[in-house]
Amino acid sequence: MHIAIIGGGQLARMLAQEGITAGHTFSFLVESELSAQAVNGLGIIVVMRSFDNARSVFSRLGEPDVITVETENVDVNQLDELSKLTHVFPSTNALYIIQNRQREKKYLKDLNIPTVDFISTSCHQKVSEAFTSLGSNVIIKSCESGYDGKNQWRIKSQKDLDRFANECKDGTHVVVEKCVNFSCEVSLIAACGVSGDIKFYPLSINEHSNGTLVTSTQMLNSDEESIELSKTAKVYLNKIIDKLNYVGVIAMECFVVDGQLIVNELAPRVHNSGHWTQAGCQFNQFENHIRAITNTPLGSTKLTSPSAMLNLLGKKVHANDITIPGASLHWYEKDCLPGRKVGHINLIDHSASQLTKNLNSLKQQVYGPTIPQ
Amino acid sequence: MHIAIIGGGQLARMLAQEGITAGHTFSFLVESELSAQAVNGLGIIVVMRSFDNARSVFSRLGEPDVITVETENVDVNQLDELSKLTHVFPSTNALYIIQNRQREKKYLKDLNIPTVDFISTSCHQKVSEAFTSLGSNVIIKSCESGYDGKNQWRIKSQKDLDRFANECKDGTHVVVEKCVNFSCEVSLIAACGVSGDIKFYPLSINEHSNGTLVTSTQMLNSDEESIELSKTAKVYLNKIIDKLNYVGVIAMECFVVDGQLIVNELAPRVHNSGHWTQAGCQFNQFENHIRAITNTPLGSTKLTSPSAMLNLLGKKVHANDITIPGASLHWYEKDCLPGRKVGHINLIDHSASQLTKNLNSLKQQVYGPTIPQ
Repeated sequence: MHIAIIGGGQLARMLAQEGITAGHTFSFLVESELSAQAVNGLGIIVVMRSFDNARSVFSRLGEPDVITVETENVDVNQLDELSKLTHVFPSTNALYIIQNRQREKKYLKDLNIPTVDFISTSCHQKVSEAFTSLGSNVIIKSCESGYDGKNQWRIKSQKDLDRFANECKDGTHVVVEKCVNFSCEVSLIAACGVSGDIKFYPLSINEHSNGTLVTSTQMLNSDEESIELSKTAKVYLNKIIDKLNYVGVIAMECFVVDGQLIVNELAPRVHNSGHWTQAGCQFNQFENHIRAITNTPLGSTKLTSPSAMLNLLGKKVHANDITIPGASLHWYEKDCLPGRKVGHINLIDHSASQLTKNLNSLKQQVYGPTIPQ
Repeated sequence: MHIAIIGGGQLARMLAQEGITAGHTFSFLVESELSAQAVNGLGIIVVMRSFDNARSVFSRLGEPDVITVETENVDVNQLDELSKLTHVFPSTNALYIIQNRQREKKYLKDLNIPTVDFISTSCHQKVSEAFTSLGSNVIIKSCESGYDGKNQWRIKSQKDLDRFANECKDGTHVVVEKCVNFSCEVSLIAACGVSGDIKFYPLSINEHSNGTLVTSTQMLNSDEESIELSKTAKVYLNKIIDKLNYVGVIAMECFVVDGQLIVNELAPRVHNSGHWTQAGCQFNQFENHIRAITNTPLGSTKLTSPSAMLNLLGKKVHANDITIPGASLHWYEKDCLPGRKVGHINLIDHSASQLTKNLNSLKQQVYGPTIPQ
């Protein structure tokens, strides 16, 4: 099949790499040549032009059998037009809801899935009142185009509020969220086939630094609370998928607060916290997304080894520099700019405790004293 | 690292696909553009020219950090010259021995490793006598350039001998082997690091048709005889590797005769009977070959699931045509000519007996009534 991906970053790269081995061909709709470094050589690169209509985009993409995305920040109107010409997975409806924090939160609320308390407003209306009514510790997030902690403001004081007022464009839709004291952040990833079958990966425990993911470790604990968390996460994600008639891979990020799950956000795509599935599962998230959108039976998401992942944030690493056993480097071929996601290292080990030790050593090796906290 | 591969077939393709994910770059030395279809887009393609010396080949390949092979049929003199300019793994000495059946058999004999009884001669000297002295059922194999049953003649009668006399070029070096009545064919694959570490994959049981591999299944039996076979195979291959100071992946093909192993041939490279390691092992043979030759610690060869592989011989298959669970297609992007290896399907299943059933169904699905025997 010929598959078009909207986006040309590392997620598009790894989707295409998996798809190409299975005989699929690819094209990528990107904002600029520069944003397509990671998919260079993997298919036709099509740079968006403001004057293109859906028919010409479809034609420039090589008349794909299916269109998918590596990001939720897409033009859903154009995608709606494209969906009249070919399959689009996930659906534009799913993307429309998830790409906007306010719609996403409303969707979750309607399903009785717990989310962080929030007030939606637009910049700079009523932000001060929201700040007061939600307590004196909030996060303001733009409703759209936020990722890796971008377009987010942590507000603890009038000074922070002033900084926000300076930085945020007037009229931007935002949600003001109460800051929660979480014990950890977890995510659940599922693959959903055209025929309605759903396969869940094991839960990931995620560690962020300044809003950017640094490590993901497959849930290693098997105590009652961990099992309960996994179960609840599956119940929530199952409801979310079911109502959306979702096709493809989807991720749900959650906070754990007093042992309870609170859903933070969804991602209608393969997710950074699922990269360790490349090393530790029978079929990884990229393979399963390609399978889902091409109506190929989903592969087993069974764990084959305790697994973890370390993101390479602006750090160039060579495969043969890594001496820790069970490590495998994935390099994205992007310019190595400070803080940028340029690769990741997956880790497996037969022992969960050794895996944790190895992950810490690896982090130390890669980041040294500048280790992201 | 920049890696050059001699050859541009599916083995080069799968090596490069693995290496590229880890940030390596590739070039390929090929006989013709046409023989490089499988590596199209994966790196620089360099067509051999008779007038090139090692220095110019090295330069045209982009001054690789290491040169490796996907075939034993290489010009070892040229490779010897290249090894003065960069690393060559496996060594030219290993390739020199293994690329010639007579030298290979002598090498095995010197190590006291059982091989099939044979007489080496050249076409058409003494072939008749060999035929008589080895019994009336022999196989004549050219010493070099034989693969997938090519350049081999099964001789049971004077008529066969006449056919051989017609087809074989005068002066060709051949070995005449006694035909053995084997119960099955097995192969063992090992990865050997620069530092001397060796990791063995589980034994494969192989099924051929007219000299070409059709299926490989990871040894599913755990009875005493099977364990003993695996153990003996490791002892033999260990001896072979040790004496050669081997670096990279190596395969050893054997017949099982009356429960005993008889080594048929070696392959100084990744091997078709190890393709199922892509689906069923923590690190597959391609990853481990790249790791070995780039001096990256070898990955675990541990089995993650009962696994098997079906070769696609001149059969075009689409990923979404395959409905059997646990199947994954690898397509080589080569022209689909009759009998040609154009792809393979890996299969995993949690149950060994179900795996065997699924493999048979898949074979039936792909080949229908023309199923290779």
